[in-house]
This record gives sequence, C-alpha cells and structure tokens, in this order.
Amino acid sequence: MPTMDEVSGPSRLAEPGERISAEELQLAARNHGIPLEALRYDVTPAGLHYLLIHYDIPDLDAAEHRLTVDGRVDRPLSLDLTDLRTRPRVTRRVTLECAGNGRALLEPRPVSQPWLVEAVGTAEWTGTPLAPLLREAGIDPEAVDVVFTGADHGVERGVEQDYQRALPAAEALREEPLLAYEMNGSPLLPQHGAPLRLIVPGWYGMAHVKWLSRITVLDRQFDGFQNAVAYRLRQRAEEAGVPVTRIEPRALVRPPGFPDFMSRTRVLRPGPCRLDGRAWSGYAQLTGVEVSTDGGATWAAARLAPPEAGGGPDLAWRRWWYEWSATPGRYTLSARATDASGRCQPVEQPWNRGGFANNLVQRVPVTVLDE
Amino acid sequence: MPTMDEVSGPSRLAEPGERISAEELQLAARNHGIPLEALRYDVTPAGLHYLLIHYDIPDLDAAEHRLTVDGRVDRPLSLDLTDLRTRPRVTRRVTLECAGNGRALLEPRPVSQPWLVEAVGTAEWTGTPLAPLLREAGIDPEAVDVVFTGADHGVERGVEQDYQRALPAAEALREEPLLAYEMNGSPLLPQHGAPLRLIVPGWYGMAHVKWLSRITVLDRQFDGFQNAVAYRLRQRAEEAGVPVTRIEPRALVRPPGFPDFMSRTRVLRPGPCRLDGRAWSGYAQLTGVEVSTDGGATWAAARLAPPEAGGGPDLAWRRWWYEWSATPGRYTLSARATDASGRCQPVEQPWNRGGFANNLVQRVPVTVLDE
Repeated sequence: MPTMDEVSGPSRLAEPGERISAEELQLAARNHGIPLEALRYDVTPAGLHYLLIHYDIPDLDAAEHRLTVDGRVDRPLSLDLTDLRTRPRVTRRVTLECAGNGRALLEPRPVSQPWLVEAVGTAEWTGTPLAPLLREAGIDPEAVDVVFTGADHGVERGVEQDYQRALPAAEALREEPLLAYEMNGSPLLPQHGAPLRLIVPGWYGMAHVKWLSRITVLDRQFDGFQNAVAYRLRQRAEEAGVPVTRIEPRALVRPPGFPDFMSRTRVLRPGPCRLDGRAWSGYAQLTGVEVSTDGGATWAAARLAPPEAGGGPDLAWRRWWYEWSATPGRYTLSARATDASGRCQPVEQPWNRGGFANNLVQRVPVTVLDE
Repeated sequence: MPTMDEVSGPSRLAEPGERISAEELQLAARNHGIPLEALRYDVTPAGLHYLLIHYDIPDLDAAEHRLTVDGRVDRPLSLDLTDLRTRPRVTRRVTLECAGNGRALLEPRPVSQPWLVEAVGTAEWTGTPLAPLLREAGIDPEAVDVVFTGADHGVERGVEQDYQRALPAAEALREEPLLAYEMNGSPLLPQHGAPLRLIVPGWYGMAHVKWLSRITVLDRQFDGFQNAVAYRLRQRAEEAGVPVTRIEPRALVRPPGFPDFMSRTRVLRPGPCRLDGRAWSGYAQLTGVEVSTDGGATWAAARLAPPEAGGGPDLAWRRWWYEWSATPGRYTLSARATDASGRCQPVEQPWNRGGFANNLVQRVPVTVLDE
C-alpha cells in the first residue's frame, strides 16, 4: 500500500556536471524570480516580486479567516481581519529575498528550487505591528520561541505539515515585524499570503509566514521541520547546523543594453553607459557598493542612494549607480555590497548543503559592439 | 571585434536524454506559468497569469505613449491613451496560452523557453475594438497583413528587432481583437504590455503584441522574424513551414490533494474526490472533456460548464468536473478536450521543431494513501 515515505525523497546534491532535473524545472516554472530589468522600480509592481510557495496557494476566505494567538500567553486571542484592521496601522518598505537565492549556481548544487540570482523583491507592506499584540496577549516572560503557522499544507521529506516557522521571542518582540494585510496599497494577492502574513524585515523569506492562521508561544525551542530540519546551515547531512536568519548583503546589476532572447547575453553599443542596480543587507546599513567590469579582477566604488532616516539596517534595498564608458569588447559585470557589520559579498561561493544565504557576486555577460 | 552573430546561436534540439541547460533555466526563472492550483479562479489574479517576454519589459510612460497607424491606409493616425480611452470601450474575458506550452515535455526537446503545461491564464481585458480603428484610418481593401510593433527590443538568432508580429488583414478586421489598456479592471501591469497591447481572442500568445506602439498595414505578406522565421510549424529546419495561429484544444486538471514540495506528486486520502479543471479551444466551442485516472488507458466523460451565450468559439476557458472515488494506490490523472471543429487532444506528442501548438494530454501523478 502506498505510504507517505515513498512520495518524497531525501535531500540530495547534484552530481558534478549534472544538469537541472525535471523536478527542479517544475519548481522553476511555478516559483518565479524578479525579471532583472524590474530592478528599475523602487517598489516592485504586482506580479514581479519573487515567489516561493512550498506547497499550494491555499483558498482562504478573508471574511471567515481568523488568527489565533495561544500557547504561553495569559490571554489567548482569536482575531478576524476586521479586528486586525482596527489596530494601529503602519506601512514599511521592505526587501524580501529567498534564503535559497543563488542555489542553482553552486557546485555541487543542492537539488531544490533552482534560483539563479533573481529571488528578491521590494514592497510596501501595510499591517499592524506584532509585538503589541503579543504583549496584549500576555506573553510569558520566559518565552523562548514564537511559532507562526500558515494554512498551506503539504509533505516535505516524508513529513506532512502545515508550513510553520518560529522566531526567537526576542526577535518577535522587536519593533519591525508586522502582521500584514496589504501589499503596495492593495489587499494581499493570494500568492503573497492573502488575507494575512507575517513580515520580518531583514530576515530571509522563510520567516515571513504566508496565509498566517496561528501564533503559538513556546517556553522551549521549536523543533518543527522548517526550523530543525530544513532552513539550517550545515556542511554535512549529519550535522545539526545553525538556523538561517538574516539576509546577507547583496548587490544586483540591472542588466544594461538589450538581451539576446535565448542566452540573455546583453548587447550594448559603445559610449557612456550608466550602470545601476540595487543593494541590501538584513544585518546593518550598507557602507558601500563596488562595481567590476572585468569579472571581479578589479573593483571601483559606485554611488549609493542615501539610507532612510533613523540609522538602522536598510529594511529596503538602496539604488546604486556607476558611470561606465563602454568600448567594444566582451565584459562580465558584477557589483558587490558591504555593510556596517563588516559583511561583504564573496567572489568564491559560500557553500552549504541547503544552498542558503549564498551571496556570491552576480556575473552579467555583456557584449559591446563595434558601433 | 564583437558582432551580433556571436551573441545568439541557431535554434537547436536537445540531444536524447539531455537535461535542461543553464540558458533554459534562466528563461524559466523569469517567464513564469500559472501555479496549477490557480485553475480554481475563473479569472486569474494579478501575478498568476503566465508570462513570456522575449526581451526586457520596456519602461514606457503612459502619459507620453502614442500609437501610430500607418502603411496602406488613407488617413494615418497618431493616438495617445486618452484618445483610445474615449473610443468605444469593451471588456472581454479571454484565455491566453503560449504557443510553446508543453515544449519541455517533447522528445526531442526544442531548446527554448522550457514550458511544461502551465503557460496559460485568463483575464478580463478592457480596451477598444481594433477593426473600427482600421476602418477609420481607411484601410486599403487590398490589405494582406497588418503588422503590430511592440516597444520591446532585443536580438534573436542574430536579428536585432523590436518585437513585431502580423495578423492577416481578415483576422485583424474581425470583431474580437482589442487594443487593451486594462486587465482585470486595473491599468495594464508593466509585464502585461503597459500601457497598451493587442488582444486577439482565440490565438496563441505570440499574436497579442505587448507595449504596442505601431500598426502598419501591408499589401503583401509580412516577412519579419516572428512571422517568417520563428513562430512556424515545421518538421525540418529547412522547411518554410506554416505560421502558428489559433489555440488547439486543451484541458488541464487542477491537481487534487496536497503536494510533496520537491516532486509535486499529489497525495490524497481515500474517499470521494471531485476532480476539476479548465478546458479551452481557439478554434470552436468545446463539445466535451474526458478524464482518465489510469494514464490514458480508459476515459470517462466529465461535466462541462455551459458556454457563454452566442455560440461562437470559447474565448475563455470553461470549468469541467468529474466525481472520482479515490481508493488506495498510484494513479496518473489526465483530461482531454474535444471541440466542434473535431480537434481533440492527442495521447502521442504532436511534434514540430519549435515545439509549438503541442496539446499532448497532461499527466498528474497522484498517490492515494491507505487511510
């Protein structure tokens, strides 16, 4: 008789030189990245923000949906969207990036969603701050983890589950996290978590639980799949590893010129060319972006748009630009970001078995024609 | 010195067993399909409709954008969006499908955008009918083709071009084609052709030119790249072939149960299960949808939602459903559509070098657990 175990295999690494499998392509066809020319927008328009959906988009009725707050709290809560909308309302511009961004460029390649560099987007998220709600519920001062449960249901490596991910209580009680019900001024789209999702500025996407239905306070570490098994940094399968948390600094180049359809190689004509793009870090404010036009051999400082007022980490990406004089030839363009915590993007791949938090510099092949 | 020729290679077929290349993955990461669970919606929400963008999304200013109508017309026109919005306004619900849908399942596989089955979507398009505008411009009664030029610019197989595709004049003068400026009640999104695109109900996506800037009437056949070289049905590279036109009938199953993350295999528990999905054809009204739960060995009639009033082809997909009694085991679910022109979906692949108009039946692997 069929069992759950036979439906999903163990995690694996691709063999040397092994190309993308049918399963990886199937994920790439449904979870999409930002088209890189859309780095032109300060706020990513609907439909261009990256998407990573573990299971299926659930079919939730906003009018019926309820959020439960329970576990180690004095006063458990059950709230509907009207309750949440009558609470204090804030809007934050936040850059989200998938923890697996860049995975498909790693060698050996962890076999999972095969991102290149495009799993990022920036939106204006509107909702109510999480921390005051936890305090109103009377969160236990001894709380260790806060578990967020979504309504998306599936199986992963043999474990049937609703998607669940926990934050340390101290992170959940910071000022930034939001219970968001709007994106770019409109109600959340189904694929972005309608009617309610968590936003944890500065953290990789796995923390921003979509289709949020339950918040559970624990007096111990959460041992659920997405915290204890999946999103962890480890070199070998048998290691416990450490959890994936905040976003490493990264800069992306908005590819200049125009593309070839199949190879996406960029074509330019000679002359002055302003290169630009975006940069971000979930750890600290950016201190600089550098540009290379020779595949990383030499670097020059780019200009960087000023940060938001306040001096905290850059919750949203910042624009950078660099004046290039393009002469005929073949080039590889890259940009790299450095932040105030001292983190910088490596030119050698930072490898781990899940392919997480990999901020290897992007490489954009460009051909400058003779005329 | 670098030349345009070296930027793009010739078309090619994958070797037997050759997996997806880095170039195909790069296209899959930016051009996305509909997540199949979104077949639940009559009208596909923003961001879930399939997208195929040949080059880059151009950055157009709606306030400055103009549409030129020229060539074999008595009175050339230049219109802005305000002019177009003051013309008669109609809304049509239309299903669009990429001509290359299903390409990545073909053997041998044409190397291009590697669609599986998900390159489809349905929207409410609002705009002004094309034919009255052509008549007002005084279209030459001897007109043969009408060329639609978009603002997206790139190179394809060595040919630098703005995207251009022509319709036969008789098709352009039918009642259905629209110059659309809204999608689902909102202004077009950048990736769907903002501020203006052509909609040609019943035709594959290559005809629905986005970022429309020019309409040129010819008294001869258009010999541009997308008509004469690219979107053609041919068995051998040296054949002239015939142009890709209308959408072959197809049915898709909305995958039941819940998925495994990596394999997307569906898991169900035993019991009654209503299977459903969508079906469409650009040639004629659908006459039936059949369902198979045994990989195509046997078929049973599904129920089909009634067509729109009027008796013409189904411009938008129709819902179908089938009551299945799921007992433990492993199944392959399929559905196939038949239309009033006698077209039906094949169980053997309809192969051509471009992988176009391939409506091979979908196969959805399902595991029904013991309990």
